[in-house]
Amino acid sequence: MTTILKGNIVSAPACGRLDVTEHGYLIAENGVITGVYPVLSEQYAGASVEDYGDCLIVQSFADLHLHAPQYPMLGMGMDLPLLDWLNAYAFPTEARFAEPDYARTVYRQLAGELVSCGTTRVCMFSSLHTDATLILMDELEKAGITGYVGKVNMDRNGAPGVLEETTEESMRETLRWLDACQDLRHIKPILTPRFTPSCTNELMAFLGKLAAERDLPVQSHLSENGAEMDWVRQLHPDCRQYWETYKKYGLWNDRTVMAHCVWSDERERQAMKDAGVTVVHCADSNQNLCSGVAPVRRMLDEGVKVALGSDIAGGDHLDLFDVTAAAVRASKARRMMDDWNTPFLTVAEGWYLATSAGAAFFGEQPGFAAGNSLHAIVLADDTLPQSRTLTPAERLERAVYRRQEGAVQAVWSAGRKIYAKP
Amino acid sequence: MTTILKGNIVSAPACGRLDVTEHGYLIAENGVITGVYPVLSEQYAGASVEDYGDCLIVQSFADLHLHAPQYPMLGMGMDLPLLDWLNAYAFPTEARFAEPDYARTVYRQLAGELVSCGTTRVCMFSSLHTDATLILMDELEKAGITGYVGKVNMDRNGAPGVLEETTEESMRETLRWLDACQDLRHIKPILTPRFTPSCTNELMAFLGKLAAERDLPVQSHLSENGAEMDWVRQLHPDCRQYWETYKKYGLWNDRTVMAHCVWSDERERQAMKDAGVTVVHCADSNQNLCSGVAPVRRMLDEGVKVALGSDIAGGDHLDLFDVTAAAVRASKARRMMDDWNTPFLTVAEGWYLATSAGAAFFGEQPGFAAGNSLHAIVLADDTLPQSRTLTPAERLERAVYRRQEGAVQAVWSAGRKIYAKP
Repeated sequence: MTTILKGNIVSAPACGRLDVTEHGYLIAENGVITGVYPVLSEQYAGASVEDYGDCLIVQSFADLHLHAPQYPMLGMGMDLPLLDWLNAYAFPTEARFAEPDYARTVYRQLAGELVSCGTTRVCMFSSLHTDATLILMDELEKAGITGYVGKVNMDRNGAPGVLEETTEESMRETLRWLDACQDLRHIKPILTPRFTPSCTNELMAFLGKLAAERDLPVQSHLSENGAEMDWVRQLHPDCRQYWETYKKYGLWNDRTVMAHCVWSDERERQAMKDAGVTVVHCADSNQNLCSGVAPVRRMLDEGVKVALGSDIAGGDHLDLFDVTAAAVRASKARRMMDDWNTPFLTVAEGWYLATSAGAAFFGEQPGFAAGNSLHAIVLADDTLPQSRTLTPAERLERAVYRRQEGAVQAVWSAGRKIYAKP
Repeated sequence: MTTILKGNIVSAPACGRLDVTEHGYLIAENGVITGVYPVLSEQYAGASVEDYGDCLIVQSFADLHLHAPQYPMLGMGMDLPLLDWLNAYAFPTEARFAEPDYARTVYRQLAGELVSCGTTRVCMFSSLHTDATLILMDELEKAGITGYVGKVNMDRNGAPGVLEETTEESMRETLRWLDACQDLRHIKPILTPRFTPSCTNELMAFLGKLAAERDLPVQSHLSENGAEMDWVRQLHPDCRQYWETYKKYGLWNDRTVMAHCVWSDERERQAMKDAGVTVVHCADSNQNLCSGVAPVRRMLDEGVKVALGSDIAGGDHLDLFDVTAAAVRASKARRMMDDWNTPFLTVAEGWYLATSAGAAFFGEQPGFAAGNSLHAIVLADDTLPQSRTLTPAERLERAVYRRQEGAVQAVWSAGRKIYAKP
């Protein structure tokens, strides 16, 4: 099966670089990209072309950190610091997902919203509820989204009577969940200790063993907030730094994503680089909860892998266009905090982080490289006023910043067209 | 003529405070608010009530600083510092407004977008073009928006051959503009020296004299960026601080709005307070252009008047819901820059700045006070998921943060219903 998309094709083959092919052809065979071409070669004579005219065709988004059960509280409780916010908002909201019908309704809406804003790859936290997690995976799979979802493990310091599980329950339910989700094709499980304060050593050891035995990826939180880091230090006096609490239990390798890393110092960053851990920068969330601004420029310079996460509902934007703009804006706050010495992220750099850098966690090459699975967004912007002809790169910049209702015309995920504007 | 709106009425009677009347009545006589009531008194028996059910009814927005002719470049050129950005983007974009047909098309779209997102009061920069300015005023008036628009004065340091006027032209055209816009009812003229570097002393003196003679308000820019401030110092070695270049020419009083004021120190802030100048905080713009973060908390503590501006197109959001969230977020960046010592703006404080504080420049009392002109937005949020019943204040917080397509159901401006959702 050949797919040929025609339009102004813009991709991010390297951090800070945009490849542009105006009125070009993006071609995939059986859902796998073969290349981007300025003209259609003879072998495709007579093949069907989806012609999107003057639209932009860009890579779709990878959102490497978000909490699905916090979707109902998106945009609320932003005046609280992290640990208070967890208790006042996040835990009670997640507790509702004990009800499968509620979970079905909310997760279907979430999957629909993700698709319509062009997010086709995720690393997502569910709640501790196994059934709701399976429902979430089912809804994402049906919507055509790809990636990883984790049942959350949290056998200590939860919300008593509201959101908690025993160590034994956590282990048993994790195994039940892993068995039950085996048949899904595009949504796979990822082990998800909530964060070190939420998991006993016994549970952490169990999860590390499981990761090794079943070759499973791992996601968690790291060095988001000073109070959190102090707490981890008290809980693990044997570990010099937060990341070592994951490393100790086999939860720290090149299939690990760690959200936030706002306060990761040189040693922690070196440990990430050595292990091949992917940092997920959650700019909105870190600013909303006054956690700080992660040293993204420094991480990039040092060769640490960095991708973006919406982190709903610490973050208030689900749409990765907004999240990209937030990352750029946060880098400007960081520049100010660093006495104007640290270069901010350009839009092209932010775009790379939101697309290629996230896709790398799924084994893809940057940009629309041959061999990548076809993940793409078709974008129209012809209803916006303009004062001169814009280059595709300028149009992409504008798309990142400017709220454009109905701009997304179509979305492709793993070779399938999963959205067409109604 | 009696107007009665029924719904969950939320207003900002003081900075940081929200007044809530659930399922209450907002009543106006001939477009002037008489009060907010929990029940309808007998005198209104038989009167027609516009019942908005469970919707929120809130004050509409005042956007006290934006550049209408930069609307076509909204969301572009954000990787440049202020003075480079002016030359590369702002000046060429504004130059297009020499063409009246182009101005008509763009300004009609701008007026429509402002209305649909609930901005009913503005202090707005046009370009230097008199005809385009009159077209802008006409389109705003027709759309039902109220407030001030200024033909920009800039007789030096413009863009030669692109965007410039002589001193004589600037004076003559200003008088022609003032004559031509006399018959508009809701959109009034405001004198608009672009900023000190753009205006000769002769022009500044002319504008100051005109302000006094015709009792006109004044808008300009102040202390946005270090390079700009250095430039002003070179141009006016006789003035110790930037604000004194306005004061010297009679452009500094309680009918003056000054945008940005990022770097206004204690002395400059005291001068604002003494004169009753209104500061317009433009959080998005200041972060995009890496200008800095204005000391809004300190200004509020000191009793300086502060309102909000979208500052399109240095700012990338026209919608004041976003601008409010940006102000809150910027205050958190400021907190981080101040070693976590400065309290951030709460959502209720941000809301006050976006509504009541801006309306004050137009002589209104805070909130839905009796005697105020009826300016209101009706907001629905029933398509959003939720995990429990939310209070009206929580719903308002969510509205500020969360992009909700189609949330605005109706807008009232100066007593008239100027928008109803199609």
